[in-house]
Amino acid sequence: MAEPLKLALAGLGTVGVGVLDLLQQNRALIEARAGRSVEVVAVSARDRSRDRGVDLSPYRWCDDPRELAEVEHADIVVELVGGSDGPALELARGALTSGKGLVTANKAMIAHHGMELAASAEQSGLPLKFEAAVAGGIPVVKGLREGAAANAITRIYGILNGTCNYILSEMETTGANFADVLAEAQAKGFAEADPTFDIEGVDAAHKLAILAAIGFGAQLDFDGVACEGISRIQSADIEQARALGYVIRLLGIADLDQVDGQPDRLLQRVRPCLVPRGHPLAHVDGATNAVVAEGNFSGRLLFQGAGAGAGPTASAVVADIVEIARGETGAPFSVPSARLQAMERAELGARTGRSYMRFTVADRPGVLAEIAAAMRDAGVSIESLIQPAHPLENGGADGGEALIAMVAHKGREADAAKALKQLEGSDSLTAKPLFMPILSN
Amino acid sequence: MAEPLKLALAGLGTVGVGVLDLLQQNRALIEARAGRSVEVVAVSARDRSRDRGVDLSPYRWCDDPRELAEVEHADIVVELVGGSDGPALELARGALTSGKGLVTANKAMIAHHGMELAASAEQSGLPLKFEAAVAGGIPVVKGLREGAAANAITRIYGILNGTCNYILSEMETTGANFADVLAEAQAKGFAEADPTFDIEGVDAAHKLAILAAIGFGAQLDFDGVACEGISRIQSADIEQARALGYVIRLLGIADLDQVDGQPDRLLQRVRPCLVPRGHPLAHVDGATNAVVAEGNFSGRLLFQGAGAGAGPTASAVVADIVEIARGETGAPFSVPSARLQAMERAELGARTGRSYMRFTVADRPGVLAEIAAAMRDAGVSIESLIQPAHPLENGGADGGEALIAMVAHKGREADAAKALKQLEGSDSLTAKPLFMPILSN
Repeated sequence: MAEPLKLALAGLGTVGVGVLDLLQQNRALIEARAGRSVEVVAVSARDRSRDRGVDLSPYRWCDDPRELAEVEHADIVVELVGGSDGPALELARGALTSGKGLVTANKAMIAHHGMELAASAEQSGLPLKFEAAVAGGIPVVKGLREGAAANAITRIYGILNGTCNYILSEMETTGANFADVLAEAQAKGFAEADPTFDIEGVDAAHKLAILAAIGFGAQLDFDGVACEGISRIQSADIEQARALGYVIRLLGIADLDQVDGQPDRLLQRVRPCLVPRGHPLAHVDGATNAVVAEGNFSGRLLFQGAGAGAGPTASAVVADIVEIARGETGAPFSVPSARLQAMERAELGARTGRSYMRFTVADRPGVLAEIAAAMRDAGVSIESLIQPAHPLENGGADGGEALIAMVAHKGREADAAKALKQLEGSDSLTAKPLFMPILSN
Repeated sequence: MAEPLKLALAGLGTVGVGVLDLLQQNRALIEARAGRSVEVVAVSARDRSRDRGVDLSPYRWCDDPRELAEVEHADIVVELVGGSDGPALELARGALTSGKGLVTANKAMIAHHGMELAASAEQSGLPLKFEAAVAGGIPVVKGLREGAAANAITRIYGILNGTCNYILSEMETTGANFADVLAEAQAKGFAEADPTFDIEGVDAAHKLAILAAIGFGAQLDFDGVACEGISRIQSADIEQARALGYVIRLLGIADLDQVDGQPDRLLQRVRPCLVPRGHPLAHVDGATNAVVAEGNFSGRLLFQGAGAGAGPTASAVVADIVEIARGETGAPFSVPSARLQAMERAELGARTGRSYMRFTVADRPGVLAEIAAAMRDAGVSIESLIQPAHPLENGGADGGEALIAMVAHKGREADAAKALKQLEGSDSLTAKPLFMPILSN
């Protein structure tokens, strides 16, 4: 039996404590699978005195997580501090320059600094792994890096944020509006006190950028993710979608456009979309995550599971640790970071597809004609149009407001954007129109 | 750049040709991901002259696949001949004893001889991989071995046979009966001329036994799989299931019973089951496969994709090859074969759960009372009972036959079996009753 693999663990929130629990509970099977035992030698967290329900006395304590990079005899730093920069990044850099491998659940740090960290790890022949940074307990980083390794992947998309999916599923089931469901999710601990990163799609964008880099062999481009959240979705939209045979999901979608068989431009979007009820993602409810990757030989692969939580995230962190213990320590993004290709960003408006548009309008004659004219002028062809009778969330019948929803035939998003831009100037509209792509089946 | 990884490929059916195609089409990205090029040096197949649409002239030809074990300069034998024994097994043994690694898509061979082959590979420090043997293009072997490596897994189940799933989905959609849909599937190439292995569940049992060994760390026990196929399912059963809120799927289910927290007994079954419409497996249609693994930290993980076909299977074969090229060559069944535990078989009848039972009966007074009495005597509690008006497939109204379907409350399968055994002797029944477990959500 080889030497134990020794860990220095930074961050003892729910995930950190979950990792300690897992290593304890599943000790024997991890040793059997890893071929060696895994031992924690040092830990760091903000408050030493807090009762976390675990005995920390066997471990060396460090007040400053950055000290863990220097702990003697540790092979691996496990970074669960969080935050794209600050102590987490300093610790990550320090670990790799001190000859330690790095396992992290930090999606923001990897999305922003993953290329630099990968280059540093590769230069020193050290492992860098971040399965837990994407989609919690679902082994989708390994799924792309290893399972789909034989494929040219041209599309990766999925439900990458459990909070948003929970909110949308709840709105769907209860008919409640966004603000109420969000408040309830916060009360239940399914949403943060400041939910901005989740509901505005930033968290999903971090994950999408990481998946796109691994799947496409592209340089990480988090800033290139066009990001829109779910805060403008009304229960009326969900009802309209249902009537049309769809559910609304916040999707991260990364497309690699091919020109003459060569990867050319990268399109990364996080957006609420209409998902046809026959699509596997339409049945992903609650805080569950799911990722689809389309390979040129594998076809469509789906990975689904818990997107967050102490247990699932610890499961992903320790899966990385087991891989390292087994000596499986290849390039973090599947190809060496120097070979990740710089991809131009594709123009958002060039995408073609069917789409859903919703307008809140003053309830008076001529409004519909105005919308229809704007669509005609922009070359948008209307497939169906619904003007429901039920009142709106804000205002509604007594406010003299009405809702108009429409589905446009397959066309360029730029054309729809042009029509919407023209209408935004109109005083017939009482709010900014909402545009959602319709996912093809 | 390291030396190329050299392959000797046995079997040039659709999968073998798919592997050659893939290695050609995705050559550059495989080299980038594997860190070295992958080259075929020798091939073998039954008929050299057959036009397969690929140029075989660059490769050394062997008439007998077993010669590939001796080909100089080959690092890996890729076995795509098929069959649990015979030339495939001889080639596999020969490759490992001649110092070559082995990649295979052969589920029958692994289910029967996987332990022996793994021991041989481990003894010589050679890789043995068989991702393509289970669920085609879905990387579920890696998903269990690597993605879920941190978890004690207590249950693995899923849709493991595309032919059966296609037939059941078609029966569901069209209302046609089993024999007609099977004939149509054969005509379309979705079912073999001799479909026995598929429709009687043997193929699914091969895959289930392999998954159970990896997931549970148990010795392979293919003979321990209780196996029942789909040939007795009638369109009336599908209709009844639908009315009750279920779909019928052929599932492989492996359970690891725990006693005092220690794995104790293994239950492996392949059976048609009623799947509640809210369960992700209920939405897996056509030839798609899907596997669920339940880990003690990850929770429920789902892997879904194409279960067969040249492209998906080649994708899985080459994913193994890429892993080997990367030097990731650990124990084939996740733990060394000598550490796989011998598990006793759990008693089938000890399982508890709700169930569906269907009787075809002579349409005369007293039959229902007889069935109800048998249930009462065996301690089976009836939850609901349906005696539909529509005719049966064979016989029907004019034949004086009727169908009675019932759902039993949660109880021991042994009790239901006792009732059914008693009823089998009755001349009121015109055929053997059909029993299907109901999957809990």
